Amino acid sequence: MQKLLQCIPNFSEGQRPEVIEQIADAVRAVEDVRLLGVSPNGDHNRTVLTFVGPPDAVAEAAFQATSKAVELIDMRMQKGEHPRIGAMDVVPFVPISGMTMADAVDVANAVGKRIAAELDVPVYLYAAAATTPARKRLPDVRHGQYEGLQESIALPERKPDFGEAKMHPTAGAIAVGARPPLIAFNVNLGTGNVAIAKTIAKGLRESSGGLMNVQALGVDLAEQGIVQVSMNLLDYTRTPIHRAYELVRIEAERHGVAVVGSEIVGLVPLDALLGVVDFYLRLSDFTRNQVLEARLLEG
Amino acid sequence: MQKLLQCIPNFSEGQRPEVIEQIADAVRAVEDVRLLGVSPNGDHNRTVLTFVGPPDAVAEAAFQATSKAVELIDMRMQKGEHPRIGAMDVVPFVPISGMTMADAVDVANAVGKRIAAELDVPVYLYAAAATTPARKRLPDVRHGQYEGLQESIALPERKPDFGEAKMHPTAGAIAVGARPPLIAFNVNLGTGNVAIAKTIAKGLRESSGGLMNVQALGVDLAEQGIVQVSMNLLDYTRTPIHRAYELVRIEAERHGVAVVGSEIVGLVPLDALLGVVDFYLRLSDFTRNQVLEARLLEG
Repeated sequence: MQKLLQCIPNFSEGQRPEVIEQIADAVRAVEDVRLLGVSPNGDHNRTVLTFVGPPDAVAEAAFQATSKAVELIDMRMQKGEHPRIGAMDVVPFVPISGMTMADAVDVANAVGKRIAAELDVPVYLYAAAATTPARKRLPDVRHGQYEGLQESIALPERKPDFGEAKMHPTAGAIAVGARPPLIAFNVNLGTGNVAIAKTIAKGLRESSGGLMNVQALGVDLAEQGIVQVSMNLLDYTRTPIHRAYELVRIEAERHGVAVVGSEIVGLVPLDALLGVVDFYLRLSDFTRNQVLEARLLEG
Repeated sequence: MQKLLQCIPNFSEGQRPEVIEQIADAVRAVEDVRLLGVSPNGDHNRTVLTFVGPPDAVAEAAFQATSKAVELIDMRMQKGEHPRIGAMDVVPFVPISGMTMADAVDVANAVGKRIAAELDVPVYLYAAAATTPARKRLPDVRHGQYEGLQESIALPERKPDFGEAKMHPTAGAIAVGARPPLIAFNVNLGTGNVAIAKTIAKGLRESSGGLMNVQALGVDLAEQGIVQVSMNLLDYTRTPIHRAYELVRIEAERHGVAVVGSEIVGLVPLDALLGVVDFYLRLSDFTRNQVLEARLLEG
């Protein structure tokens, strides 16, 4: 199967188009990498890039984008609403096909090591690449932000995974990690009673005893006269789309409410959708290679 | 959306590997075309090629493969179990994505015209490209085969759509057409009673009052102790996979029998699977472009 890795770096510039474009161009310049999205946010003063390709090419593009961000962004002046520790703030690698999470962790390690060695920016490994439980969650890694980390980086528990325990003067520090693809999945319910959506969301989410790897909120879609269970599925390989959908459906039935629709927001890996087809059709022996378009992507 | 066209030509040589390879190589030589399958059948003395790509490239590859088959296959000697009218016997074009059936019919017309003009082989348009109802079905077009058509081609009703009413001395004639993708879809039932599968198949198929665009047979899978409703879905855009599946499931329930599995045999277009996801998750506003791998195929 073709190896595909995704990278979704976030850098600390969301206002100056010429800076954003130069960083995006660093990705575009790498052969075999496809830049699928450039999403600046002016208030956050932050931009999210989405690109995908073979692992070596994606690793190279992540490094080149980081190098350009380190060159162009001066954190001594940077202001924005979003928490951040550096010019290139966070670089997550996401296995899409033909790769395990361990493979993505290897890429995070290699890129993190190179960033520290060649750009003199201290690197924290996070999420699946974290070296201690305290670094699993990004908010913990970002604690104190660029300003606070100037001093706390010297503490033993804040020692970077790569590079010296010293902030880069203009570029700060960077979090590099590996995680599963996140799927934003919402289920709409045929009622105007948001309390029902909130109750179901509470039952669904990991934090209150529901499904692992699921975040869920009950939301009022007042304009449409319906409510929504809005979810993030953080690891569809272990907690697939259909399981979240069916659980919402069954919990809604308890309230005499029907599912009237659902939506997937943004990008979704093919394998996550094949899981849905597999479940409902009870497929046996179906492989990704039988999808004509997936065959076309094979090298 | 990216335009993808599939072509599944059948030529009248299934025994001599060196001839088969030369015809396959004619396809491989065309840039942007992906040859996905070469399936020779010795008894039929016939080979099926499967390839896909942008419409212009696929049209070129279909012509080049036909040209090579006309050059290398002498129908005066050819024997095999499968009905055929020519060296390159039949060339169907199948719209996969970003194309309508009318677009595929245009390609069939252009390629058919070129074959008649440059290779002196008379061309019949069939299936969605047919110019009269009598040429919709391939068996009707192939009536009398290579041998019988030598004389009957002179009849007004057998006049070719392109080229003179005269068989090519060694290559015969050719059927060129356009049709939707065929999906081979089987549903397994948890009973050893093949009569139930046969009854359900009869209820499912178009020919006995069931679903349009569905062929169905009841089959005994004695080794596994179960039975199967084996279907060809001839136009999933109008009669989608989930409709066939659900109808089998409901008819089986009537007999107290459960669906224990299903299988998709061979290749399936992504859009057909997205239809399944759409149905079961009640998706709204989902587009093919949200599938990461589909985005990668975009030009």
